[in-house]
Amino acid sequence: MQSYTVSELLSQDIVFPEVEVKGWVRTFRANRFIALNDGSTLNNIQCVVDFEKFDESILKRVTTGAAIHVTGELVESQGKGQKVEIQVKTLEILGDSDPETYPIQPKKHTFEFLRENAHLRTRTNTFSAVMRLRSSLSFAIHKYFNEQGFYYMHSPIITGSDAEGAGEMFKVTSLDINNLPKNDEGKIDYSQDFFGKETNLTVSGQLEAETYAMSLGKVYTFGPTFRAENSNTSRHLAEFWMIEPEVAFMDLAGNMDLAEDFLKYVIKYILENNSDDLEFLDKRLQDEDKRKPQAERNTMTLTEKLKFVTDNHFKRVSYTEAIDILRNCKPNKKKKFKYIIDDWGSDLQSEHERFLVEKHFKCPVILFDYPANIKAFYMRLNDDGKTVRAMDILFPGIGEIVGGAQREERLDILKEKMAAINIPEEELWWYLDLRKFGTAVHSGFGLGFERLVMFVTGMSNIRDVIPYPRTPQNAEF
Amino acid sequence: MQSYTVSELLSQDIVFPEVEVKGWVRTFRANRFIALNDGSTLNNIQCVVDFEKFDESILKRVTTGAAIHVTGELVESQGKGQKVEIQVKTLEILGDSDPETYPIQPKKHTFEFLRENAHLRTRTNTFSAVMRLRSSLSFAIHKYFNEQGFYYMHSPIITGSDAEGAGEMFKVTSLDINNLPKNDEGKIDYSQDFFGKETNLTVSGQLEAETYAMSLGKVYTFGPTFRAENSNTSRHLAEFWMIEPEVAFMDLAGNMDLAEDFLKYVIKYILENNSDDLEFLDKRLQDEDKRKPQAERNTMTLTEKLKFVTDNHFKRVSYTEAIDILRNCKPNKKKKFKYIIDDWGSDLQSEHERFLVEKHFKCPVILFDYPANIKAFYMRLNDDGKTVRAMDILFPGIGEIVGGAQREERLDILKEKMAAINIPEEELWWYLDLRKFGTAVHSGFGLGFERLVMFVTGMSNIRDVIPYPRTPQNAEF
Repeated sequence: MQSYTVSELLSQDIVFPEVEVKGWVRTFRANRFIALNDGSTLNNIQCVVDFEKFDESILKRVTTGAAIHVTGELVESQGKGQKVEIQVKTLEILGDSDPETYPIQPKKHTFEFLRENAHLRTRTNTFSAVMRLRSSLSFAIHKYFNEQGFYYMHSPIITGSDAEGAGEMFKVTSLDINNLPKNDEGKIDYSQDFFGKETNLTVSGQLEAETYAMSLGKVYTFGPTFRAENSNTSRHLAEFWMIEPEVAFMDLAGNMDLAEDFLKYVIKYILENNSDDLEFLDKRLQDEDKRKPQAERNTMTLTEKLKFVTDNHFKRVSYTEAIDILRNCKPNKKKKFKYIIDDWGSDLQSEHERFLVEKHFKCPVILFDYPANIKAFYMRLNDDGKTVRAMDILFPGIGEIVGGAQREERLDILKEKMAAINIPEEELWWYLDLRKFGTAVHSGFGLGFERLVMFVTGMSNIRDVIPYPRTPQNAEF
Repeated sequence: MQSYTVSELLSQDIVFPEVEVKGWVRTFRANRFIALNDGSTLNNIQCVVDFEKFDESILKRVTTGAAIHVTGELVESQGKGQKVEIQVKTLEILGDSDPETYPIQPKKHTFEFLRENAHLRTRTNTFSAVMRLRSSLSFAIHKYFNEQGFYYMHSPIITGSDAEGAGEMFKVTSLDINNLPKNDEGKIDYSQDFFGKETNLTVSGQLEAETYAMSLGKVYTFGPTFRAENSNTSRHLAEFWMIEPEVAFMDLAGNMDLAEDFLKYVIKYILENNSDDLEFLDKRLQDEDKRKPQAERNTMTLTEKLKFVTDNHFKRVSYTEAIDILRNCKPNKKKKFKYIIDDWGSDLQSEHERFLVEKHFKCPVILFDYPANIKAFYMRLNDDGKTVRAMDILFPGIGEIVGGAQREERLDILKEKMAAINIPEEELWWYLDLRKFGTAVHSGFGLGFERLVMFVTGMSNIRDVIPYPRTPQNAEF
């Protein structure tokens, strides 16, 4: 007898006299209809039991969450809502699930409760859909870069350098911190630590990716990065995954082309390959919206938001133009913004980014040529001496989704910028070497993966789009 | 004018009047022939300059490592070794490379030297080939699992549990370790640490992957894992990448089928898609062998070793049978093994594993049903009460490449095994929940990614198959 996944069974056009399937009971209705799910798809297969043919003691154990093994005939379904169903011949309980104590009941649970049960939350429709989409997005990302001739590069997680300055870092040590070795000066003797010096968890793989771009041409990273910042918000994680492409001989215009093409590709991939999960989440969001006051509702459905990205050209606007638009716009003049835009040089907040995308341009926006002093040291200085070749891509609902730049390829200027913020040259000798030997224009960007998953799934808390979120005071599981 | 990568140019069958290419000079011969590489392929494009048409001051700057921009006509090559070449019309130096100080000269460098220049080593043929293969293998892995209906899962890197016991762990903290907060008992007050408790870097994502398998069915992880063990060998890294598939309703036989199919698929993918890089590394290895005494030479070429895996059925042998074979084999009786096999219960060493694969069975081998006391607590106990449903896959040259098991799905037995090695139930309450609610047979395995890259590239030091190796006393770059 052939064993099938639920997904395989539901895609059958013909009937089969004998099939076998294993999964977990979602519901058991009227002592007759088992909705069985095995994670292969959002949808359940209906297994119909004739209760007269089975022991009551067995049927009693068909409870939500129980693992069962079913054999029977795959037939056209008589009922609504499914094309095929199984007429059950044999039914075996593999693993019981006590209805009194099983946390995941067939009812609505709060996301907060499900976060506390993160090891079981993918047994719900919402979280299984989110995590299947997360997986599918990951694959689309690898597929895109592979098709475009990029090489995937694993940048290091433990780093001996703390120069990138993207945020607070976690320390990594193998020393016994109850009994730290001290040197003659009474300071901690890091020469006895595993790596012989202080080490941290990486905040970005970009600088290392640049070393590979300057030899392999087109590369990208996709790995975990870390911030030890005490930000207890729905948008911050201490551990999150980043995608960082880096390309030799590519300028900022090429970087914009790449990022736009990339984002459209992965979102199209999801639209084409994950319609069941997307439709479910879209409907979930619309139901949630109905319970909100009109003013707080989403202006677009989930699918509309995704098509807003795939079907529009991304408008390219300089920071200076954007400041002009924002300074003179209604919400700024009427002081509706929380942060009023007065001067050139202000950093933009999510409210400003969303205004540009949702109200002013009505399409995704790429802002570029930002003031040098609000951007990182490695971004290429423009001839005006005050702006750098940085770009941020802004999406509806969330604001910035991608940040990137053409990198400073000129040794003397890079050294000056490092000196200005007290990064010793010895710290980044290898990064400077790229500018000493065969330097060239190159560019890249960073995409916080969880931001993208939030955008695609419509989930509003970043803790709900990663399997086991790490946040202040929380490293459970 | 159209811009091309070197890989694109070399695959052209027709000539073009005008092409543009950017890359780095590998060599400049006879003031006439530039070998140009851009990382897109192992191969260089030959750019032919008529030195009478160019300033001597420009030609002098065409040195190894310099970045240049060339335009010209793509023509059939007159010389040997390439199909097409560029007749250079314009030549621009983008970034100089001082021949006096550039570390990567067109000559043989020791791997030790290149490790110290890991930021530049992918500018050599060997390391660019290795890293392109590493990238291609990564993609093949994602492609395989995607095609087989697996979901990719990001297991956490920072973990609050230290129960897995796979090895020494690195501590992660945001506390100021020069000024540690103490509690009333004089101990470190971890409640003030970022996560409110002690945290470490993960040694394996398996336990978390099991939680996802028990809801999504078929999942895999592919992420970094860590060991704080002071092993300064050519086979150990403190930071390395692991692939860990985990499948619900799959027993040990299914696990063997999956692992065999998976390994054959990814190696076939490389044979079909990366022939240039493979051939180069194969030849490199054969040249290296010629300089060795006969006894130390490889018995198979690199390609032969890969085909040994793809073309043979993996022989399945129980641990007990293997011990019988080893106890009675010549090298054991003649005490040629470093570790003599006396009794059932001995742990096998690489020399024994290689003997079974290379001398006895002459095919890849899967050993299974190992003694319980040399394997992890979560492996399923057999009815004999002394062996567990573990498996190791053994390859030529390296011994163990995959370790896996059917997991203990019975709550009572799992609790007993945890108690026996003093893992408190509170520590793994969520792992035990999987056995309380809808438990089922499930299995998985772990593959150290760098081991696979070593096998496929023929590199003998694990530090040479990861971009920036982390080893005792070394976290440079």
